[in-house]
Amino acid sequence: MSEITILIGQSGGPTAVINATLVGLIMEAKKLAPHATLLGCHHGIDGILHEDFISLSEVPDTLSHTPGMYLGSVRKKMPRLKEAPEQYEAIVNVFTKHHITHFFYIGGNDSMDTASRLAAYFSLINFPCVVMGLPKTIDNDLVLQDHTPGYGSSAKYLATTLQTLAYDTAIYPVGRVTIVEVMGRDTGWLAAATCIPTYYSMGPDLIYIPEIPFNFDSFTKQVKAIYQKKKRVLVVASEGIKNEQGEYISSTGALDRFGHPQLGGVAPRLASYIESTLGIGTRAIEISLSQRGGSHLLSKRDYREALTIGRHALRFGLSGHHGMMVIIKRKRNSPYKIKYQLISLSKVANFIKSFPIEWMNVETMIPTPSFLEYVLPLVEGEVKISYEHGIPKFAPLSTSMPQKLDD
Amino acid sequence: MSEITILIGQSGGPTAVINATLVGLIMEAKKLAPHATLLGCHHGIDGILHEDFISLSEVPDTLSHTPGMYLGSVRKKMPRLKEAPEQYEAIVNVFTKHHITHFFYIGGNDSMDTASRLAAYFSLINFPCVVMGLPKTIDNDLVLQDHTPGYGSSAKYLATTLQTLAYDTAIYPVGRVTIVEVMGRDTGWLAAATCIPTYYSMGPDLIYIPEIPFNFDSFTKQVKAIYQKKKRVLVVASEGIKNEQGEYISSTGALDRFGHPQLGGVAPRLASYIESTLGIGTRAIEISLSQRGGSHLLSKRDYREALTIGRHALRFGLSGHHGMMVIIKRKRNSPYKIKYQLISLSKVANFIKSFPIEWMNVETMIPTPSFLEYVLPLVEGEVKISYEHGIPKFAPLSTSMPQKLDD
Repeated sequence: MSEITILIGQSGGPTAVINATLVGLIMEAKKLAPHATLLGCHHGIDGILHEDFISLSEVPDTLSHTPGMYLGSVRKKMPRLKEAPEQYEAIVNVFTKHHITHFFYIGGNDSMDTASRLAAYFSLINFPCVVMGLPKTIDNDLVLQDHTPGYGSSAKYLATTLQTLAYDTAIYPVGRVTIVEVMGRDTGWLAAATCIPTYYSMGPDLIYIPEIPFNFDSFTKQVKAIYQKKKRVLVVASEGIKNEQGEYISSTGALDRFGHPQLGGVAPRLASYIESTLGIGTRAIEISLSQRGGSHLLSKRDYREALTIGRHALRFGLSGHHGMMVIIKRKRNSPYKIKYQLISLSKVANFIKSFPIEWMNVETMIPTPSFLEYVLPLVEGEVKISYEHGIPKFAPLSTSMPQKLDD
Repeated sequence: MSEITILIGQSGGPTAVINATLVGLIMEAKKLAPHATLLGCHHGIDGILHEDFISLSEVPDTLSHTPGMYLGSVRKKMPRLKEAPEQYEAIVNVFTKHHITHFFYIGGNDSMDTASRLAAYFSLINFPCVVMGLPKTIDNDLVLQDHTPGYGSSAKYLATTLQTLAYDTAIYPVGRVTIVEVMGRDTGWLAAATCIPTYYSMGPDLIYIPEIPFNFDSFTKQVKAIYQKKKRVLVVASEGIKNEQGEYISSTGALDRFGHPQLGGVAPRLASYIESTLGIGTRAIEISLSQRGGSHLLSKRDYREALTIGRHALRFGLSGHHGMMVIIKRKRNSPYKIKYQLISLSKVANFIKSFPIEWMNVETMIPTPSFLEYVLPLVEGEVKISYEHGIPKFAPLSTSMPQKLDD
C-alpha cells in the first residue's frame, strides 16, 4: 500500500454525536492503516484553504461524547467550479503539498454539496484523492437514507424536555397555552419526535410541522378545543412552519449566507395570536441551541451508529470508493436492524427528505403510530458519561483551548 | 398516641426534587406513625378550601424523581387575617371535619408566608394542629439557611446547559454574542452557578445578577473587550437584573397576582442593545421552564437532601413543633457536612436572601472561588433514573391522569 494521508473536516451545525463520527474514523484508520498520517482541518474547507491542519493521531478520551465540533465548523459552501475555479485549484495545491490521499467531510446538506463538487472536480482533473461524505444532521432531512446520525439524540433530548414541560405546565387547575419552538427549518422530524411522551405519559397536545401548511384559524380552533377540555395546552411548532402560500410564519425577511430565509420567533408570534384571539394567557419557549448538543442525554443507538458510520466510511474510503457518502438503511424494525451502504454524493446534496405527511394525523395534529414505530428505536438507550465538578467531563476543543480567568 | 391525620400540600413553582420531599414525608410517616391517615391536598390551600383531598398511603415508585408537582400548585397566597377572617375559619372547619392534626406545606417564600399565617392563627385560637413548613425553591433565596432543596439540581442543569452552549457557540472562528437568560427574579444564585464550566472547561464569559446594578455602558465595554480577544462572547443574565435606579431591565410594567412586577425578555433586550451599539451579531436564548424540572439531570446531593428534609420535618412535626420550618445549615465544606434544624416560619417568610456581592468579581463579572466552594457540593453526584420508550419514566401526577389520544 502506498503512503496514505487522511484529512478529516467537519461542517454545518453541531450534533451531540458529530464528534463520535470523527472518533469512529480515527479508530478505524488506526486499525486498518496504522502508518497513515491522520490530519484534521479546522473550520471545514476554510481550514484547507488556510492550511490550518492539526494532527489527529492523538485525541482526548472523552471526545466521542463531547458536544460542539472538535475541528470547528464553517459557514462557507463551495461555489460552482465556473464561478471560482481558483478555489478548486487552491484546494488541489494544498492537497498536493500535504499529500492528501483521502478526504472525509462530515456534515449536512450544504456540506454534502461541497463534498460532491470537490469529488466531481477531482474526477474531472484525475486528481488522485478519494472524497467521502459522512452524514450528520439533527434535522434528519438527508434523502435516500433511513435517518441521520444526530437526529436520535436531539429527538431524545426534545422528547425528554417536552415531557418535563408537560409536567411543569400541569401544576395549576387552570393553566396557559404554552408554545414551544423547536428546530426544523424545512422539515418536521424534530418536532414530530416530541409526540413520544404524548403517547406514553404527558407531552404536547398539538404539533405543527413545515410539511403541513399552517392555518391560523384551524390553529385557534384546535387550541380552543383542547383548552376547553384540559384548561391548558402544550403546543410544539417547528421554526419553519409555513402558511398556505409557502411563506414562513416567522420570516424576518432577511436571508442567511446560503440564501435561506432567516427565521426567528415562531413561538412568540403564535402566542400573541392566541392572546389576541382567545384571550388566554400564553408562554413562548424556544428550546434553541441546547437541543443540538445534549451530550448528557445521548441516545445510545444514535451514539453507536455515529461511531460506526465513521468506521464504515474509513473502510469504504480506503478501498477507493470516491464521491460517495455512507448512509444508513433500515432492514427491519423488530428487532431493529440496519445496514451501512454507499450512495453517490450528488444524489443526496441539495435534496430534502420531508416528513411523510401520512405520518401526521391532521385531525389531532399528533404524529401517527407508524411514525412512533419509526422513531422509537432511534432514541433507545442511554450513554453513561463521566462527571467532574458536578458537570459532564468533555474534551477541550482543538480550535479553542479552555478559557482562563486571568487571561 | 392519639389519632393522627397528616395533610400535605405543595405550593409555588416546581423544582426537580419537590416530589422527593413529599416522598420523604410519606416514608417517615409510614415508619413513625404507621396507623396515621396520610392525605394530600390538591393545589395547595385551594385544595383545603375545596376539600380536594387524596390519600397518600400509596404513591407511585418513581414519584421521588418525577418533575412537576404531584399534588399540583396554587398561585394563591393567604390574605391577612383581618382582611379575610372567613378564609381562616373555613380552613379550621375543614381541618376539624377531617381531624387534621398535622399540616405540612412545601414551598418557597410566598408559601412560607401562608404557612406562617395559618400557624399564627391556629395558635391564636388554640386550634390543635401542628403547622410545619418545608423549603423548596430553585431560587435559593430563603433566609437563615445555607441553601434550599431544588437549587442544587437547577444549578447543575444550568451549569451543564451553559457548558454545552459554550461548546456549541465556539464552532466558528468569528462567532456572535450569545445572551442567555436564566431564572432569578430577585437573586443571582442560579445565574452564578453557571460559572462552574467557566472555571473547569468552557462556560459563560460574563454573568449579570440582580444584586449588582446593571449599567448598559459597562456591559457594552465588557462585551467588547471579550469579543476583541475571543471573537465570541457568552453572556448569562438573571431575568431580574435591575438598573442603578432599581428598575427591572426587562420590566413589562405589569404586575403578577402577588404584586410582583412581571418580567420578560432580558436576553432579547440586551441582544438588541449590543447589535445597535457594537454592530455584532447576537443570539438571545431563554432557558425557561426546563431549568426547574430537569429530573433527568438531578444533583444526587440535592435529591437526597430533599428526601431527608421531608423525613426530618415529619419527625419534628410529630414531636409537636409548631409554626416552624426545617432548614439546612452547613457545618463544613470538606468533607461537606450539614445539619437539619428548626426555625420559626415568621423569621423566613417575606425575606429574601441575596447573593453576597463579595462573591462576585465585578471586574470580570464572574463569581469568585469562594462562591465556587459554596456551590460545588450542591451540584455533586448524579441520580440514575429509569427510561422507557427512550424517555425518563415518571409517575403520573395525581392531579392529571395521562392524556389519552382518543379522549
